[in-house]
Amino acid sequence: MVKKIAILGSTGSIGTQALDVIARHPERFTVTGLAAGKQTAQLLEQARRFRPAFVACAEANAAEALRLELPSEMQVAHGAAGLLMVAAESGADVVLAATDGAVAFDAVFAAVERGVRIAVANKELIVAAGELLVVAAERSGAEILPVDSEHSALFQCLVGEPRERIATLVLTASGGPFWSLDAESIRNASLADALRHPTWQMGTKNTVDSASLMNKGLEVIEASRLFGVPAERIAVLVHRTSVAHGFVIFSDGNVKGQLAPPDMRLPIGYALAYPDRLPDLVGPQDAFEALGAPAAADLARLDFHRPDHERFPCLGLAYEALRRGGTLPAVLSAANEIAVQAFVEGKLRFGEIAEVVAAAMSAAPDEPLSLSTVRAADRRARELAWDAVEARSAAPTN
Amino acid sequence: MVKKIAILGSTGSIGTQALDVIARHPERFTVTGLAAGKQTAQLLEQARRFRPAFVACAEANAAEALRLELPSEMQVAHGAAGLLMVAAESGADVVLAATDGAVAFDAVFAAVERGVRIAVANKELIVAAGELLVVAAERSGAEILPVDSEHSALFQCLVGEPRERIATLVLTASGGPFWSLDAESIRNASLADALRHPTWQMGTKNTVDSASLMNKGLEVIEASRLFGVPAERIAVLVHRTSVAHGFVIFSDGNVKGQLAPPDMRLPIGYALAYPDRLPDLVGPQDAFEALGAPAAADLARLDFHRPDHERFPCLGLAYEALRRGGTLPAVLSAANEIAVQAFVEGKLRFGEIAEVVAAAMSAAPDEPLSLSTVRAADRRARELAWDAVEARSAAPTN
Repeated sequence: MVKKIAILGSTGSIGTQALDVIARHPERFTVTGLAAGKQTAQLLEQARRFRPAFVACAEANAAEALRLELPSEMQVAHGAAGLLMVAAESGADVVLAATDGAVAFDAVFAAVERGVRIAVANKELIVAAGELLVVAAERSGAEILPVDSEHSALFQCLVGEPRERIATLVLTASGGPFWSLDAESIRNASLADALRHPTWQMGTKNTVDSASLMNKGLEVIEASRLFGVPAERIAVLVHRTSVAHGFVIFSDGNVKGQLAPPDMRLPIGYALAYPDRLPDLVGPQDAFEALGAPAAADLARLDFHRPDHERFPCLGLAYEALRRGGTLPAVLSAANEIAVQAFVEGKLRFGEIAEVVAAAMSAAPDEPLSLSTVRAADRRARELAWDAVEARSAAPTN
Repeated sequence: MVKKIAILGSTGSIGTQALDVIARHPERFTVTGLAAGKQTAQLLEQARRFRPAFVACAEANAAEALRLELPSEMQVAHGAAGLLMVAAESGADVVLAATDGAVAFDAVFAAVERGVRIAVANKELIVAAGELLVVAAERSGAEILPVDSEHSALFQCLVGEPRERIATLVLTASGGPFWSLDAESIRNASLADALRHPTWQMGTKNTVDSASLMNKGLEVIEASRLFGVPAERIAVLVHRTSVAHGFVIFSDGNVKGQLAPPDMRLPIGYALAYPDRLPDLVGPQDAFEALGAPAAADLARLDFHRPDHERFPCLGLAYEALRRGGTLPAVLSAANEIAVQAFVEGKLRFGEIAEVVAAAMSAAPDEPLSLSTVRAADRRARELAWDAVEARSAAPTN
């Protein structure tokens, strides 16, 4: 059976790599819907190539322009309605949720309620609303498959295993470009420095989060939501070469881990093909060499180190948000989004990202979790974060 | 449900460790049968402690003595009939096949035909008769669970996975005590040298096999039989610290591996508890430390090297036996048993073990596989191997 795939965020890094995977396996996958934001020229090209029945973009004008360029049988919509159409009304077997932030929450929940499998690359969705999503998925029978490499690793290690026998989940972290720097250098690091990631090619937001280890903090929260394991049983190990992505330590002392070349097409392909695996993607020989061939000598050795919470306070903030629960993870995630934006725009030092997030977390009220309180907390956290950014950019710098 | 366990080889290294696991989990396991060879004092003690309904030993006189010592409701038998009773007539849910050599083949096959799960620690059983065993198990629905650490690792990595998506199986090898020695030193190594294994505590035969890498060669054949993967897609990587035990490289480029402290109770416990896992055995903290704690610094780094077939010719002989198939694996295994015995008795140099195995393999006829040809090939290989040993011990040594 050919699976029908809908992609929310088709012009982003994950979206384009997913289309690459789909293009290599026309016997397995077809594209039924594509939703993007403002990259409408690229969306138009994708729609012409993959011929989805449903296309969505952010704005009305752009949708009008797309309608004129695309075959009349393609349905084009925009904004929230467009996302909803692509996710929940396209008849997709799998929705790849690959937008950033909270923009696609409603659309994804609508798809989950219809029992559609969600391949989640949208960290904020799991961080802010993961508990609600998991409950909704259990009710409808929808499967939630993680797309980032660490959670895909854990998911793969847990296939066929009794979940109640998980002792500890271990997420690996590359450590990012600042792993070897002192606290002061990290504090004053430039955007160019932050974007120099040692192993992965990702978008700007994710690369900055990776430099601050907020990325890993958000992943700790995600892992807790996806696998139902509390904060104190989720560990992070720094592993500079990004060959091993995650380990599950079971109650009986056995440990399973997953390794793969740092190529997002692997977890994407897995989430689309599950419970099967693709017959070919990155050649098995590559993977074998990642384990021991002389040609890849630096990969034949797997090193693990404990992370440093002092130089990387974002990690501790994420654990705190997870422990406090409720809307705090949403606050963490939204405040971080603003802080990273401010850093990218030159309004904040790198070291101030954690300060802004901490300020928003202190000021935000503790609230019980619902889709509406999450939304309100997200909005309020952005305001609080901007206030904290402005307080800092107004202050004299030295 | 409490699982009834029967152990063939209860006084050996694996047997006693299995009883240790069982004793720690009385709510899960009970012992229904114990079979041992000549260690009847120890068997008596085990029978008094675990109170199995069925007890077997090698010889008639010893059985008679046991009958006098044990409660009258315990059935005691000896020889082939005793093994058969414990394996197939004891009502066991799981039979742990932990004898050496071919002595228990018939008993195990009888249990398999009744659909009883077999936890296999008897390498020769899988090496010589694995194809037949797998066919018999498929017919009866019996599960075959490996007990040694490497195959348990692969089995654990394959739980819930599509078997047809296996690209390559990777077995790790400690490399044994001779890994860093030159060819001449290996050739003349003493028994004491061979027994100095870096990581595992095992019986004499297995420790010598580990020094020659014949152990790993036999495991390559085992892996081929257990998982239905041909020789050219089974690789060996030397990994000195024995933390990682095996990897499965899947067709989609993802790799799963299993890690654990070098403690045979882990794979034993897994084979008994599967598809569940034991709630506790070696503490999860141990396993976590195996991955990265400063307290176990040498384990925080996982190194892999390619094995050297020139200094360790037994590995190549095993691949050759696997490729030629039929009764050749049985010949390899039986000839090696004799060669190791001769080495232990001082009749052979270490380096001559491979020569004796190669001589037996050259002289043995190629035959199609059946339980009777395997038995005949086993006998003939032992004769050929003794001839080769005698030719060498008669020759003047320098």
